Amino acid sequence: MKHALSITREQDFSAWYQAVISEADLAEESGVRGCMVIRPWGYGIWERIQTLLDARIKATGHENCYFPLFIPLSYFEKEAEHVDGFAKEMAVVTHHRLIQKDGKLVPDPEAKLEEPLVVRPTSETVIGAAFSRWVQSWRDLPVLINQWANVVRWEMRTRMFLRTTEFLWQEGHTAHATVDEAMEETMKMLEVYRSFAEDCVAMPVVAGEKPENERFPGAVATYSIEAIMQDGKALQAGTSHFLGTTFSQAQNIKYQNAEGQQELAQTTSWGMSTRMIGGLIMVHGDDDGLRVPPRVAPYQIVVVPMLRDTDEDAAIVDYCADLVAQLNALDVFREPVRALLDRRPAKAATKRWGWVKKGAPIVIEVGPRDVANGMVSWFRRDELYREDGKLNSVLSKKETFVAGVTVTLGQIQDSLFADAKARLDGSIDKSITDIDALKAYFNASAKPGWALVQWAKPTGEALEKVVQWLKGEKLTLRNVPNDAEAADGVCVFTGETAVERVLVGRSY
Amino acid sequence: MKHALSITREQDFSAWYQAVISEADLAEESGVRGCMVIRPWGYGIWERIQTLLDARIKATGHENCYFPLFIPLSYFEKEAEHVDGFAKEMAVVTHHRLIQKDGKLVPDPEAKLEEPLVVRPTSETVIGAAFSRWVQSWRDLPVLINQWANVVRWEMRTRMFLRTTEFLWQEGHTAHATVDEAMEETMKMLEVYRSFAEDCVAMPVVAGEKPENERFPGAVATYSIEAIMQDGKALQAGTSHFLGTTFSQAQNIKYQNAEGQQELAQTTSWGMSTRMIGGLIMVHGDDDGLRVPPRVAPYQIVVVPMLRDTDEDAAIVDYCADLVAQLNALDVFREPVRALLDRRPAKAATKRWGWVKKGAPIVIEVGPRDVANGMVSWFRRDELYREDGKLNSVLSKKETFVAGVTVTLGQIQDSLFADAKARLDGSIDKSITDIDALKAYFNASAKPGWALVQWAKPTGEALEKVVQWLKGEKLTLRNVPNDAEAADGVCVFTGETAVERVLVGRSY
Repeated sequence: MKHALSITREQDFSAWYQAVISEADLAEESGVRGCMVIRPWGYGIWERIQTLLDARIKATGHENCYFPLFIPLSYFEKEAEHVDGFAKEMAVVTHHRLIQKDGKLVPDPEAKLEEPLVVRPTSETVIGAAFSRWVQSWRDLPVLINQWANVVRWEMRTRMFLRTTEFLWQEGHTAHATVDEAMEETMKMLEVYRSFAEDCVAMPVVAGEKPENERFPGAVATYSIEAIMQDGKALQAGTSHFLGTTFSQAQNIKYQNAEGQQELAQTTSWGMSTRMIGGLIMVHGDDDGLRVPPRVAPYQIVVVPMLRDTDEDAAIVDYCADLVAQLNALDVFREPVRALLDRRPAKAATKRWGWVKKGAPIVIEVGPRDVANGMVSWFRRDELYREDGKLNSVLSKKETFVAGVTVTLGQIQDSLFADAKARLDGSIDKSITDIDALKAYFNASAKPGWALVQWAKPTGEALEKVVQWLKGEKLTLRNVPNDAEAADGVCVFTGETAVERVLVGRSY
Repeated sequence: MKHALSITREQDFSAWYQAVISEADLAEESGVRGCMVIRPWGYGIWERIQTLLDARIKATGHENCYFPLFIPLSYFEKEAEHVDGFAKEMAVVTHHRLIQKDGKLVPDPEAKLEEPLVVRPTSETVIGAAFSRWVQSWRDLPVLINQWANVVRWEMRTRMFLRTTEFLWQEGHTAHATVDEAMEETMKMLEVYRSFAEDCVAMPVVAGEKPENERFPGAVATYSIEAIMQDGKALQAGTSHFLGTTFSQAQNIKYQNAEGQQELAQTTSWGMSTRMIGGLIMVHGDDDGLRVPPRVAPYQIVVVPMLRDTDEDAAIVDYCADLVAQLNALDVFREPVRALLDRRPAKAATKRWGWVKKGAPIVIEVGPRDVANGMVSWFRRDELYREDGKLNSVLSKKETFVAGVTVTLGQIQDSLFADAKARLDGSIDKSITDIDALKAYFNASAKPGWALVQWAKPTGEALEKVVQWLKGEKLTLRNVPNDAEAADGVCVFTGETAVERVLVGRSY
């Protein structure tokens, strides 16, 4: 069967991923090392993610702020463990002026900064400094804030959306009086990420605690949501960190408790980024391009008029404009429907396949006969072909289509999630009890998924030994799922009594 | 009369401005040179500006994208005039790693970039490079895009919101086939800025063309909206540039026209920034703090329960929560009303004055007697005091208040605009016909506004002479208002025949 992309997932998943990004006009190389240009359809998905996630962040009591892009070096020096985790990959501003020299622009030696500035890789240090000004008394707690921002981590090997030098994200930062309250916040935001990923992006995930070696630099505990891609690999799609007093010690975030004593605040941070778009592609894409779940689709319905440079064209455009107006007056998922009339000067077939590749949930084509008969010809992107390989187009009375379209959009959202959920559930092997079987599972010719295995939760050097063995197999520990059964056997790595179950998999 | 701020506009306008920013919790110094922390109330206003302006940008056919933060030096070298305008104030990234040396963090000499990267001061060059990839044929035009981003211009003297090293803005960039289309776009976006400033921020402005010496580096023509602050100074609040082929030449943005010939595209750019918040403060603030127009207020109505740690408190909170729910179910300005129940653990009077200083349009106070009688006590921030100097509080039946509140919010919006508009109109002297009178006007003891004078529109050295004279008087040319009458006299500077009227004023 012929498909809209020239390469299939089966042939080369990595090349297919790049093809989707390019053919769906999501993003492109910018000419600036490791940085991408996010094009309108890709940025439109990010705007939808922002809108829906921001509403959830605000509904849980957080307010948005904005903190500086630049962080003085000295802020990092205060927090040794944190800087160790980031020091290798930061962009450093050393000059504040350029001059012409021998016909070329160069940094002006006279304008060298006394203290270099780091382009933020994350903002714990600079936000911690603000918290230390804001927090004096227990009455000032909790502080619950969030920032939407760009951050920079100098990556040697980049991949669009998944690992780029600059990326966009939100980073939440909170300060609390007690460990219990900070842990409650950490878990609350993990749940916000889980429900957002599943309900809005239709991306089923496993929420759980990362093992010690995968903790955020400076964190006491790190939690993640992990999604499975169609090649079986894991993608960490959001993290929530309990930071204890690491940053409040370094930045002096102290408060006077009700008894008049000085105490260090307990802090948390949590983030989700444009990486989510990479996950969306690898969870929902198919050999015809992207399929965007309706809740995060910039346009949910695209109407393509089939124009032929004849006198009939005006009537077709009017008919389509009226249809789009009717659709945009509807509500779905408690928001107005987003329908577009595609009037660009191109052939209808070109436009149709363009929207297929972009993954608009519903595409409608309207020709002169449809106008005459009050009909629309439409298809669902998630059910593109009939069994005979033909386009699964449906001819409906216009009124019937309009009356049923919001239900259909809900079905598309649910169907994409159900398919992905079945794939996730079917990809986790829970039967492996020894290390040889683990090795065999991941070396089998059939595409492996993940393995949920019992382990003794080793720490320090013992953990490092496990991590090194896994590394040799190109495997990583993903997380200890919150909803995993209790352990009742022995550790697959050490043979000791197991204390919990941990997910193992290849990863992005 | 006593006021909520410790300093008045009359005493020291500049100190008053800082006091509003601090007392209204809008922003604060960040500890990073020239960069500020935008706090929730300030960022909330920015989010409102973003939401309303973004809708207008999209309604005029533009799509949002995202381009890299970093721009290679070589991109600037291609466009000499542009870099001359910006070269003195750019942050330069020269290293991509830090290392520990003698117990301190320093840029790793091994990780010096071959080509330094500039943190974008504006994105014409990097977006122009993308346009050159996107534009091949006349069918690809126009390209209409916008980006919301942070930009950095190294400023020696900074002032919160008005001139900061890093600031937030939107920058629109478009490419067109013809000069006429590009000029139409330039003027369309100028009008979007004018109507947005007036309709949403209640900030009356004068839209017009900047004189040659005030053009954006590389522009053929620059247009601005200029607002008058309460100290009589002008604030440039948005600009729209016709760039001709300056950037399409430098970045090679060429298209094949319908006749098969290669032509350079005509480009435009236009931007509005967080500076708008500084303008909002200086247009609408008073000696009790900020007054936020309802359309851009993060919360339009704040309900303060008067709690006294008694058994009655629960009933008061319930009554207030019900009131807020009723208010949030209403629509105003075609959006849901934004009402807040302020439950923070603080005294009601402290909260009241906090919201007065923040400038929430309507504040409601509810005590036990109000609950018993089904009443609310409320005041408008724009009519804070009665003539006797007492708080202008009104006692209304709850139902009556709810039934009338959206009309009241509309009246507050209109009233803030009408006051500011009367001030602007009354501040422009149109009678000055010679340079001595001009000098006398701006040196008069009474606070001067602006002068609209006739001039011969000199260029080159002749213009430079005028600019230098103005500089000696601490004056600048603002713009040539689009709606100014035609010239009918002589140039106030040179005595030659005048060709148009230009606004002169002190500026921020």
